[in-house]
Amino acid sequence: MLNYQLDRTFAALADPARRTIVERLASGPATVSELAKPLPMSLPAVMLHLKVLEGSGLVASEKLGRVRTCRIDPKRLSQAESWVAERRQMWERNLDRLGAYLDQPQDDS
Amino acid sequence: MLNYQLDRTFAALADPARRTIVERLASGPATVSELAKPLPMSLPAVMLHLKVLEGSGLVASEKLGRVRTCRIDPKRLSQAESWVAERRQMWERNLDRLGAYLDQPQDDS
Repeated sequence: MLNYQLDRTFAALADPARRTIVERLASGPATVSELAKPLPMSLPAVMLHLKVLEGSGLVASEKLGRVRTCRIDPKRLSQAESWVAERRQMWERNLDRLGAYLDQPQDDS
Repeated sequence: MLNYQLDRTFAALADPARRTIVERLASGPATVSELAKPLPMSLPAVMLHLKVLEGSGLVASEKLGRVRTCRIDPKRLSQAESWVAERRQMWERNLDRLGAYLDQPQDDS
């Protein structure tokens, strides 16, 4: 389940327009037209990107009257961050162990 | 440039087989056949995944004789981690500011 979630989260983050949307929403909720304003594409194209972001769980939205407001769901962001951070830390620990091993006085016998 | 790199890094991480490879390499370098062993796919399929990982810069490899050895390049892992961590922290700061605002005594006038 987590595996499948990570597939969708990383795939959602693999596009610069979608990262721009996540970045904007990190500083607070925004309407679809506010999100579309800085993006060099049509509103339908922005809505497709939002659909991918919602599908991944990174973004949630609700419609009030005719206005849809989007916000970050931080859970998926944290999961992706943890996955990458844990692998990087694992790699560093492994490097430290190798360093400690190489620092040991070598036995010539 | 960083934007393009992030596209490739996140796209590379959006596949469970490629994450399994990154996870294995986080605990030290490995040959292509060591990486292929736990994966439920053919060696050519593993090599295609490795090509994507090398293209993203997450993995580097070198061939010595007939054996290709792969290792993590931690730079890309750190970049992806930083991007996600910064947006999550931005979101949390925004939430804190909202909390502080709501905690203020409200003026009824």
